[in-house]
Amino acid sequence: MSETLQPALDPHAFAQSELELAEKMIFEACHSQVAAVSVGAAHVMRAGGKRLRPLVLILAAKACGYGGAERSARLGAAVELIHTATLVHDDVVDESDTRRGQDAVNTFFGNEASVLMGDYLVCRALRMIAEESDLELMRSICDVIVSMCEAEVLQITYRGDLENTFDNYFRVIRNKTACLFSFTARAGAHLGHASAAVRERLALFGLNLGTAFQIVDDILDLTGIEEELGKPTAADLREGKFTFPVLHAIRHAEGRDRESLLQLSDAQVDEVIDLVRTAGGFQAAYDCASEYAERALDALSGLSDGPALQGLRSVTARVVERRY
Amino acid sequence: MSETLQPALDPHAFAQSELELAEKMIFEACHSQVAAVSVGAAHVMRAGGKRLRPLVLILAAKACGYGGAERSARLGAAVELIHTATLVHDDVVDESDTRRGQDAVNTFFGNEASVLMGDYLVCRALRMIAEESDLELMRSICDVIVSMCEAEVLQITYRGDLENTFDNYFRVIRNKTACLFSFTARAGAHLGHASAAVRERLALFGLNLGTAFQIVDDILDLTGIEEELGKPTAADLREGKFTFPVLHAIRHAEGRDRESLLQLSDAQVDEVIDLVRTAGGFQAAYDCASEYAERALDALSGLSDGPALQGLRSVTARVVERRY
Repeated sequence: MSETLQPALDPHAFAQSELELAEKMIFEACHSQVAAVSVGAAHVMRAGGKRLRPLVLILAAKACGYGGAERSARLGAAVELIHTATLVHDDVVDESDTRRGQDAVNTFFGNEASVLMGDYLVCRALRMIAEESDLELMRSICDVIVSMCEAEVLQITYRGDLENTFDNYFRVIRNKTACLFSFTARAGAHLGHASAAVRERLALFGLNLGTAFQIVDDILDLTGIEEELGKPTAADLREGKFTFPVLHAIRHAEGRDRESLLQLSDAQVDEVIDLVRTAGGFQAAYDCASEYAERALDALSGLSDGPALQGLRSVTARVVERRY
Repeated sequence: MSETLQPALDPHAFAQSELELAEKMIFEACHSQVAAVSVGAAHVMRAGGKRLRPLVLILAAKACGYGGAERSARLGAAVELIHTATLVHDDVVDESDTRRGQDAVNTFFGNEASVLMGDYLVCRALRMIAEESDLELMRSICDVIVSMCEAEVLQITYRGDLENTFDNYFRVIRNKTACLFSFTARAGAHLGHASAAVRERLALFGLNLGTAFQIVDDILDLTGIEEELGKPTAADLREGKFTFPVLHAIRHAEGRDRESLLQLSDAQVDEVIDLVRTAGGFQAAYDCASEYAERALDALSGLSDGPALQGLRSVTARVVERRY
């Protein structure tokens, strides 16, 4: 049976050796001459996460013909370090108590160390990206992190705003999440020496995949099970971050439901979630995420088929289907 | 009169046009599509600071024969942005209330925005450094920022430790402050296409200058006048950061003075400062700073004389003489 006909290819298994190498590099990056830094960084990175970004980078590189392991593992590790650093800084930002089933780093180490640990991880990651002799990659990751900061500030300014627009919501999630996915997929294409056109396709794939991912993340924040998510449910809602399902409900609820939603801060979280469900907020959000996933798949069309491309398709499907 | 004979060359005046350009670039870097980011970043950067690092970079570049203005101004601006970002993150870290005579950014915007603002400034700065088509520069600044984070963590671990060693103190100030000065001076040499040997000399100059600078900073924290410093005096002491003068006093005080110092946390700040003075802590610290300044000057010997080199010498003298 040809590999291209395997319908249920497990992308993690296909990229296993590179993922293991990326994991090794992540922990090498945690190693510091200062013992407290090593302990803190390893604690943060050990908390896990799905390593989705390294997986996407490794698969994109393979899909574009990169035959090695080291460079895709290193760039994948770097992207994961950057992603985790933003979570660590986000924990300072949001004063949340739990993240990924462990104590948030700021609860564990205090705000001071969390800020420094995030800075450390980002700069270690940038140093790894600088190993690639490609200044465009360097410039591009700096731009992406700048966008991520801007998006986080935007999100603060929109907090508690019941009349916030979908445009604003999409602007935030694009810059906060999708741009890093876009960088990730394009960096894979870079390793495969793909043409400019193919790099753009991969960048577009990542942008749409990241958008779908964040919409689903925002749904799961409201509907997920705390033990599965590894963080408290409805954290966004409690912080006044109104995401797709809530914004949809505010627009589509009628009568008393609508009035209740407009006095959202007085309502119980469970009550709000029920109102959002009744107004079709979750279904609409899933539909929207699926649409972005479709766009991501479209961006891949025309690339030569094979297990790596199948892996990217499979990742895309799982991003929408996941329940945690 | 030959320029080389001017004894009292004003380094700021000599580098004025480049410093103005650097200032312009600093504020361009603050400009973001997100209004709140522009406001926050400009607020932070407007608070001023001496722009000592851009000055050193510009003078080092001139001393090594760089005839332009744009690249030294841009790299100088980038280093200043990085330095300021660490102060902003430090304000989150140390919960200090005032910095540079304005409200600390975390008092003004809250911790959340301070973290993001620091991240934003660092990444804008790195993006500016990436304009230089030199990956070594990129790698080196990432390493420097990693060291700075490590030093800050070290400083936290030593907090309140009356038996902390001078070795540890110097390790902290080298990584926290001197490495960035070293990068700064070497980046100037890079712009002048200086030989490897000259770059190393400039790097050594910066390392020693930065060490002298930080020792004086630590003295002024204890002896400075709040209005001149633009921040509360003895902030380090209150936070349990024991710097050169205090470490010296702990070793050299005798009898009851020594006992009082060993129960430092119970004593009044003014009382501690008196004890440090009596034990010769300030004089010893000034002597040590002067020694590092001498080493900085030694590192410059052999470079071709001229107003730029005179400027660097003059900056070195001022770093030790300054009272704020």
